[in-house]
Amino acid sequence: MTQPATAATGFGARLADRTRPLRFYSITPPRESTPREDLSRVGRLTVERLAPLGLDALILYDIQDECDRTQEARPFPYLATVDAGHFRDEHLADWDRPVVVYRSVGKYEPATLKSWLAEQDPDQVATVLVGASSRHTPVRTTLNEALSLWRDAGGAPPMGGVTIPERHAQRADEHERMLRKQESGCSFFVTQVIYDLTAAKDLVSDYAYACRERGIEPAPLVFTLSVCGSLKTLEFLQWLGVHVPRWLQNQLVHSQDPLADSYEQCARMASELAAFCRQLDVPFGFNVESVSVRRIEIEESVRLAAYIGEILAD
Amino acid sequence: MTQPATAATGFGARLADRTRPLRFYSITPPRESTPREDLSRVGRLTVERLAPLGLDALILYDIQDECDRTQEARPFPYLATVDAGHFRDEHLADWDRPVVVYRSVGKYEPATLKSWLAEQDPDQVATVLVGASSRHTPVRTTLNEALSLWRDAGGAPPMGGVTIPERHAQRADEHERMLRKQESGCSFFVTQVIYDLTAAKDLVSDYAYACRERGIEPAPLVFTLSVCGSLKTLEFLQWLGVHVPRWLQNQLVHSQDPLADSYEQCARMASELAAFCRQLDVPFGFNVESVSVRRIEIEESVRLAAYIGEILAD
Repeated sequence: MTQPATAATGFGARLADRTRPLRFYSITPPRESTPREDLSRVGRLTVERLAPLGLDALILYDIQDECDRTQEARPFPYLATVDAGHFRDEHLADWDRPVVVYRSVGKYEPATLKSWLAEQDPDQVATVLVGASSRHTPVRTTLNEALSLWRDAGGAPPMGGVTIPERHAQRADEHERMLRKQESGCSFFVTQVIYDLTAAKDLVSDYAYACRERGIEPAPLVFTLSVCGSLKTLEFLQWLGVHVPRWLQNQLVHSQDPLADSYEQCARMASELAAFCRQLDVPFGFNVESVSVRRIEIEESVRLAAYIGEILAD
Repeated sequence: MTQPATAATGFGARLADRTRPLRFYSITPPRESTPREDLSRVGRLTVERLAPLGLDALILYDIQDECDRTQEARPFPYLATVDAGHFRDEHLADWDRPVVVYRSVGKYEPATLKSWLAEQDPDQVATVLVGASSRHTPVRTTLNEALSLWRDAGGAPPMGGVTIPERHAQRADEHERMLRKQESGCSFFVTQVIYDLTAAKDLVSDYAYACRERGIEPAPLVFTLSVCGSLKTLEFLQWLGVHVPRWLQNQLVHSQDPLADSYEQCARMASELAAFCRQLDVPFGFNVESVSVRRIEIEESVRLAAYIGEILAD
């Protein structure tokens, strides 16, 4: 079930090695209200669960209240979480591999972001700078300001970008956004959770051919997969903007075991996307998360990450 | 490469055997202007090519000028074809298996349709009654009039209906149309050419669950597959309303060998759709056609039909 740990080279060197697919796992730090001893326990459990996977990095999300993005009621309440950087420093000390820290830049003052960027070891930390979910959200720092702070910091630590196949299905221009983000300094991409295989393949394809046409080396594209163990989780995925094909929705709704069914679907998508990216010579990887906090879903997602490690090693 | 010929039971009995997938191949009769000796040659060649496949039926299309359906220029010109019934009687005498004759009902006087329906041997002939492609096309018989003639003929010969997954992708109600057609007497369905696997699975799924909910036995759903050996054929497929996913369009446009690539894609869709229908307990089948008249594409489509026979027999 485990992968041999890769040599402890820096994250940038790992990104530059385009022959081996990237493997991430992502978590959202606990709520702000979590007692200190529970934070330590969560950190310890996370390291215990994930250390055997031989991952290239652990992603720490930085969620923001996205109530501006949609009128629909959030299936799970938004609760502010412990700062990702802080959580890592205090409670993930035993995690000896790189970390990708998401930054919802609108939450921070420019000075705070600036010093945070300066303090990171670029071999051990990468970041993904995320703008506000809507134009109407009041922000302390805009995404453009944050990008300019990152450039001022010498383009460190390595920066990734978010990409959303669903947006490509609607507007057919997501590959252009990727190219613009790449121009701004992104050296890898992480998708939103995907359940729409065709939309993901469409994006990979348009991106690959656009890169070829312009003589640009494609950046690694990391697909995020998440199992779905209940109707509540399905509803939450959809609220997050994940397009779950009609046939799969029906299957999960009628299934005796949606967790097993969604696991199987994720595993199939992983192997099909791996073959497809190899065929198009686009470096790729997989990121697994559990959008639900239920233990059974978290454990199944860890099992999925291990399985993906195995099929990629074959 | 061949299948043993099934017992020469009637077509209705074959439809009622829900355990074995249906296997059709479809052709469009030659143009009206074709010299008589060439018609015989086409008939002979067709029988020679298809006899080894052990098909359940040969479909004869009855094309109509669909210039009313879309403003876009038709990549291949519309040319009136020899009447399907006539072509069968005169030039397919050696085809000893059932035939499904499409009838674009608007082209015929009610009396002509009435006598044609009455003359058919329901063990050897089935029909698909097709309405006009647009509300503005002048017709001799409407689809409703034709259906009423079919009922007057005692609901013979067996009748199939056309179903279009692309319409389901847009309006999400194609399964309701199928149920209405079934109520009107359709005992099987044949799709338009499919290249959008997700749309096809979405339709199967919604149809299966709607049948379950209403306590209706699903009718066999036959998926039409067609290889695509050139950009001209791709363009024609799209003109016909076939949705080819973006990634596959890119692949075919850039391919050294689009014929082989499209063959592989059709083969994969066939095996995935077969597994999916079995899982949902929907009787199914495959129909292969070549939308192009190029010999190389026709031969590849025959090879595809043979391959599908093999994988279904496994």
